[in-house]
Amino acid sequence: MNELNILDFLKKKIKLSSSTIIGPGDDAALLRNFKQEIVFCGDMLIEDVHFKLKDATFFDIGYKSVARTLSDIAAVSAVPKYIGISLALPKKYSSKIKEFLSGVEVLLKRFKIDLVGGDLSCSKKIFVDVWAIGFVEKNRFVKRSGAKPGDSIFVTGTLGGSYKGKHKKFLPLIEKSRKLTKEFKINSMMDISDGLAVDLYRILKESKVGAKIYQKQIPLSKDALTLEDGLYSGEDYELLFTANPKNKQKLIKKGFFYIGDIIKGKELLLCDDKKTKKLKTKGFVHFS
Amino acid sequence: MNELNILDFLKKKIKLSSSTIIGPGDDAALLRNFKQEIVFCGDMLIEDVHFKLKDATFFDIGYKSVARTLSDIAAVSAVPKYIGISLALPKKYSSKIKEFLSGVEVLLKRFKIDLVGGDLSCSKKIFVDVWAIGFVEKNRFVKRSGAKPGDSIFVTGTLGGSYKGKHKKFLPLIEKSRKLTKEFKINSMMDISDGLAVDLYRILKESKVGAKIYQKQIPLSKDALTLEDGLYSGEDYELLFTANPKNKQKLIKKGFFYIGDIIKGKELLLCDDKKTKKLKTKGFVHFS
Repeated sequence: MNELNILDFLKKKIKLSSSTIIGPGDDAALLRNFKQEIVFCGDMLIEDVHFKLKDATFFDIGYKSVARTLSDIAAVSAVPKYIGISLALPKKYSSKIKEFLSGVEVLLKRFKIDLVGGDLSCSKKIFVDVWAIGFVEKNRFVKRSGAKPGDSIFVTGTLGGSYKGKHKKFLPLIEKSRKLTKEFKINSMMDISDGLAVDLYRILKESKVGAKIYQKQIPLSKDALTLEDGLYSGEDYELLFTANPKNKQKLIKKGFFYIGDIIKGKELLLCDDKKTKKLKTKGFVHFS
Repeated sequence: MNELNILDFLKKKIKLSSSTIIGPGDDAALLRNFKQEIVFCGDMLIEDVHFKLKDATFFDIGYKSVARTLSDIAAVSAVPKYIGISLALPKKYSSKIKEFLSGVEVLLKRFKIDLVGGDLSCSKKIFVDVWAIGFVEKNRFVKRSGAKPGDSIFVTGTLGGSYKGKHKKFLPLIEKSRKLTKEFKINSMMDISDGLAVDLYRILKESKVGAKIYQKQIPLSKDALTLEDGLYSGEDYELLFTANPKNKQKLIKKGFFYIGDIIKGKELLLCDDKKTKKLKTKGFVHFS
């Protein structure tokens, strides 16, 4: 499948919205938005680092590489609008690019996103990098660094189920995040990609605060075998956020899981009925 | 060099402009521009595909990976403003990330660009993917598909010198491109990354036209050994453009190299004093 084939495939199969003035096929895409602030982020998916080819189809790889980047857009409560995909893969898999793009397409349609550019190369291992542009109203972007002592801490869903395949088919929580920030003032938020403990620690570090979480409050997935799965297993892609405690009961009623409180200091504490212990916050290393 | 180190390094060493509301360190960057159209593109640089580690320092890799993407921004005559970098490399090279970023920084300073996000991972081979956002005034974006029969064809500089190292230190022609579109109506443009013949053929294909180029007009670099170097050697990163012939003499006076004419049809012809032959247009395969 060469350049021309892929472009033809993209142009025929994948619809673009009217705000995309120039889509794939030129040196750069030309896009129009004069009203909102611009959100920009990217995420890599690498064979033998993030997935093994024996466990994933090319459809899965396409879907997940886009879903991961959209999850970052959800984590700041923006609306994704455009993506660009860089894909490197061994020549022998070039016939699989269509299947890869079918996985991508599911999310393009689901969220009305335009695929507007990309780069294709050969390589020894499969490497995908997806960058997204989204838009957000002024003062609606939710930072990691806004958690305040006293804030209640919530997650949007159960944790620890990713090893059962949840990570392959998760839906980025764009609508849930937008609804949340429409109804409530959210002080800090991120998506849980490296495990609750590690990602909560990132919010604490950026916000210069500590936290206490309650063991019995942590919503474990039915696929989680132990508490450790809920705390440390990555790729749940649920949202983790903090809000003023005055909204705690309302948020619980809306179905969000209250798991703890932001405190002064910088420690992350886990409390059960009897004791309080400091949590380890080891995790994957990321650039941002 | 772990996550915290790199973020600290970025925050201390690399200045951000006031239009970057949130830079590196959150799930996504938050950017502001309400006036111009948005340009978006990306380009990969992969070890043993695009470079060999024995021929390139980490400074070179950082510089070149950003320069290639900025060259695409120049090719549409936009102004680059933000970049995001995904970098995957073997753990043993993590101490080289600073050197890589020093190469990046040269171009950030030169063009007043903000590095606003990224992703870092380990991998067996070095893999860099740089995505850029730029801005352009309405109707100033130059497409590949605008060449018209009768247009004169120009290049901005000499060709065939890349194997002597030009490709490592080339400066993206942002200012030259902006000046060009300020003074002239340019009908089509792209940057020469895969060789004059291949890239001109891309313009022809997109514009549904043919071209005649004149052997004696092709400006060979002093490092080019043969005409073949000038036609087929990649990575010159000069700009290739077409404009109405009424501006031909003015453009020549400004120092641009006139190399041929757009014709009806779809063939790419090379003419010398005696004969005309069809050019081969083999080249690298790209996604866009």
